[in-house]
Amino acid sequence: MDSSTTVVEHIYLLVMVTLISVVQNAFFAQKVEREGNGQNAKTSAFERVYCANRNCMDAYPTFLAVMWCAGLCLSQATAAFAGIIYLVVRQKYFIGYMGQTSQSTPGYLFGKRVLFFLFLMSIVGTFNYLLTHYYGSNYKEYVETITSAASALLLIP
Amino acid sequence: MDSSTTVVEHIYLLVMVTLISVVQNAFFAQKVEREGNGQNAKTSAFERVYCANRNCMDAYPTFLAVMWCAGLCLSQATAAFAGIIYLVVRQKYFIGYMGQTSQSTPGYLFGKRVLFFLFLMSIVGTFNYLLTHYYGSNYKEYVETITSAASALLLIP
Amino acid sequence: MDSSTTVVEHIYLLVMVTLISVVQNAFFAQKVEREGNGQNAKTSAFERVYCANRNCMDAYPTFLAVMWCAGLCLSQATAAFAGIIYLVVRQKYFIGYMGQTSQSTPGYLFGKRVLFFLFLMSIVGTFNYLLTHYYGSNYKEYVETITSAASALLLIP
Repeated sequence: MDSSTTVVEHIYLLVMVTLISVVQNAFFAQKVEREGNGQNAKTSAFERVYCANRNCMDAYPTFLAVMWCAGLCLSQATAAFAGIIYLVVRQKYFIGYMGQTSQSTPGYLFGKRVLFFLFLMSIVGTFNYLLTHYYGSNYKEYVETITSAASALLLIP
Repeated sequence: MDSSTTVVEHIYLLVMVTLISVVQNAFFAQKVEREGNGQNAKTSAFERVYCANRNCMDAYPTFLAVMWCAGLCLSQATAAFAGIIYLVVRQKYFIGYMGQTSQSTPGYLFGKRVLFFLFLMSIVGTFNYLLTHYYGSNYKEYVETITSAASALLLIP
Repeated sequence: MDSSTTVVEHIYLLVMVTLISVVQNAFFAQKVEREGNGQNAKTSAFERVYCANRNCMDAYPTFLAVMWCAGLCLSQATAAFAGIIYLVVRQKYFIGYMGQTSQSTPGYLFGKRVLFFLFLMSIVGTFNYLLTHYYGSNYKEYVETITSAASALLLIP
C-alpha cells in the first residue's frame, strides 16, 4: 500500500495526460471508423482522415516515451504541461489535415518544438543524475526552475 | 537488489501480459511476412492480413499505456486480467478479419469495452490518490474489491 | 528528491537508449517528410522510404516494451546494450530498404534475434522474481552474469 502510493505520487500527472491522449486517440479512431464505414470508403475525405490518423499514430509512441522519460527524470509537472500543449497541437493538426484540399496537405511532422523540449528535459535530467552520482553536486532544483520558466516559451505560437 | 525486487513485485503480472502481447505481435507480423513474400504480394489476401495487422498495431500503444496506468494506479491483478481479455478479443478480431471477404470487413475499432474498463480503472486510481493526498481518506481497498468484481463483467461476450 | 533519484538510478541507461531511438525516429520521419514534399510524392523512392519508415514504426512499441521490461526485471545495462544493437540493426535495415530496387525489398521483419534475446531476459527476470518470492532462493546474480556473457553473442552478424 505504502510503496504503491509513493509510485502514484510521482506519476499521477503523467497518467492524467496519458489518459487525455487516449481519449483523443479514441476521437481520431472514431472519425476514421465513421468515414470508412458505408459506401464512401474510397473517397478523398476518407483518405485524408485516414492519413491524418496515421501520422498522429506514428508519432504517438515517440511522444509517450519522451514525455514519460522527461517526467521521471526531471520534473513531472513541466513534462505534463508540455504534454498538454502537444495534445493541443495534435488536435489542431488533425482538424487542419481534414479540412485541407489534397493539394496542400500539411507535412508529415508536427509538434516538433514540444517534442524537442521534452527531449532536452530528459537529457538534462539524465546528466543531472550522472553529475549527482559521480561528483555529488546536485543542480536539480536550479534546473527545475529554469525548465518551468522555459516551458512558458512553448505557449508562443 | 532490495528496491529492484520491490519494483518487480508491482509489475510482474503486467510484464507477463506485455510479453504475451509481444508474442501475439510476432504471430501477426509473421503472417504478414509470409503473405507478403513471393508473387502474391498484391492479392486480396495480403491486403486483408496487412490491414488487420495495421489496425491491431495502431491500437497497441494505446492499449499498453492504458493497461500500465491502470495496473500502476489501482490494481495490478485486475489490469492484467483485463489485458488478457483484450488479447483474446484481438486474436478473434485478427482471425475474423483474415477470413472475411472484402465486402464485409469488421470495423476499424475493437476491444472498446476492455479499453474503456482499463481507462476507468486509471481514472479511479488517480482520483483515489488525490483524495488520499488531500483529504486523508483512503478508499483504495473498497475500490479494488469493486473493480475485481466488475472485471468479471468483461467475460460476458 | 531521495526516492526520485532512486528511480532514475534504475532507468537512466534505458532512458538514454530510448532518447537515441527517438533521434533515429526523427531522422526517419525527416527523410519521409523530405521525400514526400514537392512533386515527387508518388514516385517509387517515396514509396520505399515510406514503407521502410512504416515497418520500423510498426515494431517500435514492441521494442520499447520488451527493452523496458527486460531492463526493469533483470539487468539494466544488458538490456540497454541489446537496445543499442537493435538500433544499429534498424539503421542498417532502413538504409538497405531505401537503396533496394522494388524487386528485392527486404522482408517485413528485422532485428528478430535482439528482440528474442530481450524477450528471454524478461521471462527469466519474471521467473527469478517468482522463485525468490515463493522459494526464497535468489539466482539473480548468476542469471545476470550469464546474461551479460550471452549478450556478446548478439555482436555476431
